[in-house]
Amino acid sequence: MDYTENALRRVNAYKGIIVDVTTDMVKLSNDAVTLREVVCHPGGVCVAALDEDDAVYIVRQFRYPFREHLWELPAGKLEPGEDPFPAAQRELSEETGLEAAEWTPLGTLYTSPGFSTERLYLYLATGLTRGTAHPDPNEFLDVDRVPLTEMVRRVESGEISDAKTVAGILRAARIRGV
Amino acid sequence: MDYTENALRRVNAYKGIIVDVTTDMVKLSNDAVTLREVVCHPGGVCVAALDEDDAVYIVRQFRYPFREHLWELPAGKLEPGEDPFPAAQRELSEETGLEAAEWTPLGTLYTSPGFSTERLYLYLATGLTRGTAHPDPNEFLDVDRVPLTEMVRRVESGEISDAKTVAGILRAARIRGV
Repeated sequence: MDYTENALRRVNAYKGIIVDVTTDMVKLSNDAVTLREVVCHPGGVCVAALDEDDAVYIVRQFRYPFREHLWELPAGKLEPGEDPFPAAQRELSEETGLEAAEWTPLGTLYTSPGFSTERLYLYLATGLTRGTAHPDPNEFLDVDRVPLTEMVRRVESGEISDAKTVAGILRAARIRGV
Repeated sequence: MDYTENALRRVNAYKGIIVDVTTDMVKLSNDAVTLREVVCHPGGVCVAALDEDDAVYIVRQFRYPFREHLWELPAGKLEPGEDPFPAAQRELSEETGLEAAEWTPLGTLYTSPGFSTERLYLYLATGLTRGTAHPDPNEFLDVDRVPLTEMVRRVESGEISDAKTVAGILRAARIRGV
């Protein structure tokens, strides 16, 4: 069935630092009219970097919305108009110091399709060369190298809650057959 | 390392329909001061309902932020103060008509921990009894029953982009050994 909703009128309700919010008046497929609130986000990239021993690199940051330190796959926001592939290379290098010889796109993740336009481009990076991390001046993180099997265990035990990391680790595990 | 960021001052920047936005002035772990913009969301539930033949139930809705119809696991927002377990039972019943005899919590997913407080409670539901779907008046969706192996294929091919669905399907696949 076609449930397309058509915008009748847009209100730019909030213009923020990272996100904007629009509240559109839309016509539903039964011709009823309602409001759709949308968080507009530039999107981002996420990288599962696997070395020759099937270990994966993860980073630990303080995530202010949850007031928690979280372990996640390296990731970052897209600049406006930026292509995802160079952004993935940049974020992996900045956060971990790694360069990768082979990049395999693993598709896109819509993190919250009910209310947010955030779209993450997920990559598998292999053929790794180690260098020095160079995060942004006010970006603080720890890097660790963990066997993929152990990361799968952490996903299954609930130690990893970040959705992109759960998806990226389980995709990598199927690709590597672990 | 401890990278805790402490709020110095809060601005309630936007009060919306589903989300609010706060922009807090925070002190970083190096004593620098910056702003943290946070999308405040009530959180939600997501259910991987598996029948005796290892088929999973999915729903298709129009997702206005992407102007796309998406296939997703049954899911829904929490009401303020609502416990996730009854919400999961309610959403599964409303969207698919299913009741489940056994419920296994699969932990929580943080959909966008960099900027959003959305936390999804993921469940595996088994021992299914079929009934009649009864979605909200202005909620339009199709329901399908798909073998778990086929859903894994759709995740791996990129046909499924919704992050909670990718996570839930791959968690269920590991549990069922497919």
